[in-house]
Amino acid sequence: MQGLMQDVPLLVSSLIRHADRHHGDVEVVSRRVEGDIHRTTYREVHGRARRLANALDALGVALSDRVATLAWNGYRHLELYYAVSGKGSVLHTINPRLAPEQIAWIANHAEDRCLFFDLTFLPIVEKIAPLMKTVRAVVAMTDREHMPPSPPGVELLCYEELVAAHGDRYAWPELDEHLASSLCYTSGTTGHPKGALYSHRSTLLHTFAITWPDVMNLSARDTIMPVVPMFHVNAWGIPYAATMTGAKLVLPGCALDGKSVYELMEAEKVTMAAGVPTVWQNLLAYVGQNGLRFTSMQRTVIGGAALPPAMLRTFEERYGVAALHAWGMTEMSPLGTLCALRPQHAALPADDAFAIKAKQGRVFHGVDMKIVDDAGNDLPWDGAAFGNLLVRGPCVVREYFQGEGGDPLVTDAEGLRWFPTGDVATIDADGYMQITDRSKDVIKSGGEWISSIDLENIALTHPAVAMAACIGVPHPKWDERPLLVVVLRPGAGATRDELLRIYEGRVPKWQIPDDVAIVDAIPLGATGKMLKNKLREQFAGYRWPAP
Amino acid sequence: MQGLMQDVPLLVSSLIRHADRHHGDVEVVSRRVEGDIHRTTYREVHGRARRLANALDALGVALSDRVATLAWNGYRHLELYYAVSGKGSVLHTINPRLAPEQIAWIANHAEDRCLFFDLTFLPIVEKIAPLMKTVRAVVAMTDREHMPPSPPGVELLCYEELVAAHGDRYAWPELDEHLASSLCYTSGTTGHPKGALYSHRSTLLHTFAITWPDVMNLSARDTIMPVVPMFHVNAWGIPYAATMTGAKLVLPGCALDGKSVYELMEAEKVTMAAGVPTVWQNLLAYVGQNGLRFTSMQRTVIGGAALPPAMLRTFEERYGVAALHAWGMTEMSPLGTLCALRPQHAALPADDAFAIKAKQGRVFHGVDMKIVDDAGNDLPWDGAAFGNLLVRGPCVVREYFQGEGGDPLVTDAEGLRWFPTGDVATIDADGYMQITDRSKDVIKSGGEWISSIDLENIALTHPAVAMAACIGVPHPKWDERPLLVVVLRPGAGATRDELLRIYEGRVPKWQIPDDVAIVDAIPLGATGKMLKNKLREQFAGYRWPAP
Repeated sequence: MQGLMQDVPLLVSSLIRHADRHHGDVEVVSRRVEGDIHRTTYREVHGRARRLANALDALGVALSDRVATLAWNGYRHLELYYAVSGKGSVLHTINPRLAPEQIAWIANHAEDRCLFFDLTFLPIVEKIAPLMKTVRAVVAMTDREHMPPSPPGVELLCYEELVAAHGDRYAWPELDEHLASSLCYTSGTTGHPKGALYSHRSTLLHTFAITWPDVMNLSARDTIMPVVPMFHVNAWGIPYAATMTGAKLVLPGCALDGKSVYELMEAEKVTMAAGVPTVWQNLLAYVGQNGLRFTSMQRTVIGGAALPPAMLRTFEERYGVAALHAWGMTEMSPLGTLCALRPQHAALPADDAFAIKAKQGRVFHGVDMKIVDDAGNDLPWDGAAFGNLLVRGPCVVREYFQGEGGDPLVTDAEGLRWFPTGDVATIDADGYMQITDRSKDVIKSGGEWISSIDLENIALTHPAVAMAACIGVPHPKWDERPLLVVVLRPGAGATRDELLRIYEGRVPKWQIPDDVAIVDAIPLGATGKMLKNKLREQFAGYRWPAP
Repeated sequence: MQGLMQDVPLLVSSLIRHADRHHGDVEVVSRRVEGDIHRTTYREVHGRARRLANALDALGVALSDRVATLAWNGYRHLELYYAVSGKGSVLHTINPRLAPEQIAWIANHAEDRCLFFDLTFLPIVEKIAPLMKTVRAVVAMTDREHMPPSPPGVELLCYEELVAAHGDRYAWPELDEHLASSLCYTSGTTGHPKGALYSHRSTLLHTFAITWPDVMNLSARDTIMPVVPMFHVNAWGIPYAATMTGAKLVLPGCALDGKSVYELMEAEKVTMAAGVPTVWQNLLAYVGQNGLRFTSMQRTVIGGAALPPAMLRTFEERYGVAALHAWGMTEMSPLGTLCALRPQHAALPADDAFAIKAKQGRVFHGVDMKIVDDAGNDLPWDGAAFGNLLVRGPCVVREYFQGEGGDPLVTDAEGLRWFPTGDVATIDADGYMQITDRSKDVIKSGGEWISSIDLENIALTHPAVAMAACIGVPHPKWDERPLLVVVLRPGAGATRDELLRIYEGRVPKWQIPDDVAIVDAIPLGATGKMLKNKLREQFAGYRWPAP
């Protein structure tokens, strides 16, 4: 017997429609690539999104057609979020930091029909234009005055002309909530990038969840600045959640240096900002060097990479800004965990509280997680045992776009289907998860797992060590044993034995690396991450010293 | 093209499953009808709910069968919430304050299969037992020691024996989220009661929404006490939301006097409580008379009836407890609006802020509202124009159980289907709604609407007036004109002209009642509300004085 409640689907268009009707006067402030500060409101964003939807119809963009963007955080990008998904097409945000060939590959794989780009990315457009096979309209997100000359073989359209040419009457269709609403490719350290295809339903459920007090705690009283880019997993869903709650939204455009971010935060009285550690490093450096304070910022959500403990303390102790460690994946819409304290932690000494806050945190309803060994057996939640981290939920992918990579899920003994994150983690008795390694980097020695990251962090405490990677190298008796690979600081010196001695008393004896290789460089990826797979290839012929 | 996210339905069972896995150690504290304080945890509630689900299976309760409860707020009732809905049956909470004949009528209309009751309600069970046509098992929610003798014709089962007799292994089924999960009848001031049949989906969406910072703002750091009963619209959804967030839950049982409620709040360090004005009146009287303070309470959500301005001020000014005015309906799951201030109100003088806080508040995503005239035309949101309040959303009924009362919805010019609340309201430019009247009580004079409640509140400012009702009485020229009906305080006297004079300068001239009737009593309903329909019948033969 069905319940008798109204059939109202969960649609992206409902967010901007709600915002228009119930807090249409709230501001959306953007630093434009043109250089100035632009102010609009949710009501105007809604009006222009409707004009844009008409323009997309006129361009022949049909239901479920993909519309690509190469764009910063700004109001025009926000308008595209609502226009494209609202009309039933799929917003495909592309990461402009990828190599042009990779961008072209992704656009072709996604079969993008249109491409919208911020002026900054004209050089990319020039390079990819000859490579793109399905894009039929390329739109510069600017006005006539700022229009660049069209590159050879492309006739650029002007965003503001498209918007002006169409009326603002557009009835958002009552779509099936399971329809695709947006598409984001994973960076793909190995193999081709793979697309996570979000639905209207998953997008709304993710929006609902990140708003909760124990997650990002977003309210109409906030002024929110997503510094995390709208071109990557929808800026962690913040543009949707800010629209829904009626928070003022501040979009920093391409000016992500410490000074620009700080000045915009202060000018617009930002209460909550979200970003990755590297960008916050620049912000804190600027604020520190100039003896400044945060006068409105209450909290920041930090993710994308592990929150360095020193950054956590700087935000909280020096500046009184709560730093909330978050973890997620493109495949998870993206938020998986957030580290908010539980009541039993209220009376903890600061150092103990910081130890918890440095963890990746707890899941919220809609995400379930567990850690398992290689045979799929559940591991205890004791904060010590670590295993492969699996997740499931309505905002987690079940497969990649166009079946790329086959079936990514694993089935457990209960018959539940889980997504293996590729991370290795501990979970403590209070439900706090902490990533200890990537699954492929963990070192498996005699049936026991050793965290490569733990060993690297210890190596980095040695003053001579500039960079450290720990990899598992095949071993006749133990399957694998840890090999420490280090780059020394210029002019510094350290011996093998000296480096191994720092592990004494800090890890169990059997976890201490068996050998050290001092190298000139460790291979790095485009985003600065160490490529341990390359390193393992490099040390494929390595032989352990005789015992 | 469908999105590629996991198919995970929104199910009531997911709430308790999540609580067990991720905050299973959090306490659920109940004052039992047996008299003592009982402590359990979400993990134990989950275990016992699974035992109970097995017991229900053994009793032959099938998919979508209705299971009725006559019960206070307590852990056993919470176990039933999860056991019954979790297994795919329908939890039918019955308001024990109704007349026994009405309870029996409702149980028969719902075709309830089982009845669970708290010991307090044995006298009701004795009365309704011979009248119930479909109930095959009647369970006393207690242990063997406290079991009462079975009434004639019924063999009572013992709750604790049922739980003990079954194992705690139960795989919650992966139901269709549109399946009915619970059923609640409206009190029905006219005609038979009508059932709102909630689905798993609507229950979860409502849970997600009430948790938001701008709504009830519920977090794992809270200790929540729903004084509003679990037998009426699921205690405003709080038991579900507390389970989901991992808030400690404090359930007051049948002891709703000021002393008992206060002592439990203090003993358990309640941070948030929700209740109706009449219960809070008793609480405030007790606290005031004994010179006490609230030492842990931060806020209270008040609904079910308009929040009296004096109560709002007492909570906020005297006790430092934020009082959040809420409004909803059984047909809305039930929350429709909540009054949280927007940032532009932060600097308002206290009196102006109180004027806003006295309104019913703003909708949140998932509820849309509008005010229309009798022809269905939208009225302006200016805080002055008032019209019929319509609502829509995925947590609003589309029809009543078994089609009772026909199609309750109206269709607007856009083709959207709305539920007429039966209330008349204003909405201001900031989106704050204020109920001014019931649709059937508003007085329609020469095409203009006059709020009966406004006129009554003014009458009540006269020291001689104990009770006041204002009704529209047919008028040859103006369709209707307001007639003020008053009951004077014992020993007090007031003339017609004296009573009418107090309206001067407080309402426009044309709104002032044309006449006053001083009566001995105004007819009241079971819940203490004035029955204006009875009053209108009583004054059907009234003749206006010659002008």
